[in-house]
Amino acid sequence: MVVAKKYVVVAPFVGDPKPNNFTIVEEELRTLEQNEFLAEALYISVDPYQRIKLGHTIPYDMIGGQIARVIESKNPEYPVSALVMGHFGWRTHTIVHEDNAKSCGQKPYLYRLPDFGDLPVSLGLGVCGRVGNTAYFGLTDICKPSPGETVVVSGAAGAVGSHVGQIAKILGCRVIGFAGTDDKCQWLLNEVGYDHAANYKTVNIAEYLKQQAPSGIDCYFDNVGGELSSIIISQMNEFGRVAVCGAISGYNETDPEKRKGTFLQPYIVGKQLKIEGFLVNRLTNVRGNQLKMSIDKNKLSTISTGEPTYWPTDTKKISFLPKV
Amino acid sequence: MVVAKKYVVVAPFVGDPKPNNFTIVEEELRTLEQNEFLAEALYISVDPYQRIKLGHTIPYDMIGGQIARVIESKNPEYPVSALVMGHFGWRTHTIVHEDNAKSCGQKPYLYRLPDFGDLPVSLGLGVCGRVGNTAYFGLTDICKPSPGETVVVSGAAGAVGSHVGQIAKILGCRVIGFAGTDDKCQWLLNEVGYDHAANYKTVNIAEYLKQQAPSGIDCYFDNVGGELSSIIISQMNEFGRVAVCGAISGYNETDPEKRKGTFLQPYIVGKQLKIEGFLVNRLTNVRGNQLKMSIDKNKLSTISTGEPTYWPTDTKKISFLPKV
Repeated sequence: MVVAKKYVVVAPFVGDPKPNNFTIVEEELRTLEQNEFLAEALYISVDPYQRIKLGHTIPYDMIGGQIARVIESKNPEYPVSALVMGHFGWRTHTIVHEDNAKSCGQKPYLYRLPDFGDLPVSLGLGVCGRVGNTAYFGLTDICKPSPGETVVVSGAAGAVGSHVGQIAKILGCRVIGFAGTDDKCQWLLNEVGYDHAANYKTVNIAEYLKQQAPSGIDCYFDNVGGELSSIIISQMNEFGRVAVCGAISGYNETDPEKRKGTFLQPYIVGKQLKIEGFLVNRLTNVRGNQLKMSIDKNKLSTISTGEPTYWPTDTKKISFLPKV
Repeated sequence: MVVAKKYVVVAPFVGDPKPNNFTIVEEELRTLEQNEFLAEALYISVDPYQRIKLGHTIPYDMIGGQIARVIESKNPEYPVSALVMGHFGWRTHTIVHEDNAKSCGQKPYLYRLPDFGDLPVSLGLGVCGRVGNTAYFGLTDICKPSPGETVVVSGAAGAVGSHVGQIAKILGCRVIGFAGTDDKCQWLLNEVGYDHAANYKTVNIAEYLKQQAPSGIDCYFDNVGGELSSIIISQMNEFGRVAVCGAISGYNETDPEKRKGTFLQPYIVGKQLKIEGFLVNRLTNVRGNQLKMSIDKNKLSTISTGEPTYWPTDTKKISFLPKV
């Protein structure tokens, strides 16, 4: 008899998530039926989008992707010891069936990982997972940077932002990142390979950009929103492109007045900017059929699986959007 | 000897334009040289974009389009009594040469009008001019509305907005307009053909939209910016499209605090919105070679001339963009 432990959200998030938003519940798992397998979590992903209540009713099992190992199986396609990426939530053990109805209430987002060799399998949640896809498709499909252009990234030291910067460098761009501590900026400069990085909490952002991007900004990959974004957008070049990946600066903000900042329209019209928001599943689903996961010890390729999305198709249920 | 009168901008605009921003200057015109003609203004256009200082140095001749009649000519392509549309500025008489260097310092934006029959030639500045092109190309190229979709227009009773609404109706959309007086709203409903129209100064905008657009908003043609736009954008459907044509609510605003409002990023990412600013010359120039001005008493077709733009290519000189 396997006992699973799982995080259950028992109180709605208000401001920063706190321990009392969650409780840990144990549940005894039944025996497997035909075509099911039992997955044991190795890595669980903690991502900003999980802060968003996606139409769930409290209490609900905490959502999230994980890398898991098959420890028992009645499905020959998922034999014991196989590694899988699945959207099983924050839980230790999961009975999984490819049929949505039988996968513990989670919609299927499931595939086997290839052999990662001696690279860590957690990359299946990182550059080879949602994070890498978000960075790659958001930058290439929406920002469409050309070699020599200047790309600015907010939330640059985050999971997505740190990949955006690397991909932009590979594409021949000059890359400037903003992060929230000096240590993060040093990491961006010394290890990730950003050309410039600044702590948005302590630098004069407008002046800094004038110095580091004297020819203006062509692309902006926005993970955070807020006034930082207004300042960056105010210095964009004609026909600049903005990919809006997230708006985390506001997710925990409960004061409506702090959800306000400089209007963007004068810059949007004056510089003929294009600003587009995206959820990664849209972009990966479009390309899914053409792409296969591939991995090489010398060159990690970002991938798409073509698997169906777990994201609710009815985004009216996304309750994080504040009323205006 | 012809004496022209012209408006000269002698003081930079601060807040609302005032009479003392201008002076009227008389100038004696020289005799025509070969290939020149003398144009006498019939209609002069007063447009929001003229509020923007386009890199000119004070003092400068006031910019603007006009419909003019040729009253003297040494150019057989522009014979006496021909009607032209030209970007001659706010002046009574103009010596015009198709060569930029000789057209009184104005870059060429010049074409002969076709025979309007008994329709007013001022339409050459309206539906058949910049206004109509802005409405038509902004709506169809950027908003790309489908029949049955809901289109919202701000500045709906303005020159551009009133055309956007009519074009959207022709395309089979449900059209909602916002204007600044009850009289304008009555005009939109009774004459222009909007399905719904409201005074944004007196209505509860969020509640009004919930009632009149219960299925959400698919397209938004934004002429004004400001908090009205934030509220409209907060009620857009997934994959909504926003054409940003102007931001007039801020052009005369001198208080930086009043240039602030609700951040758009949470809606942009949550609903995967696409927001694009445009200056009409970009769109008409692209299509210019394929389109010809055509006019029919029963059906006014919007047109493009393919003429080169007078808009400065270096928009860094656009000084209306406030510093953040």
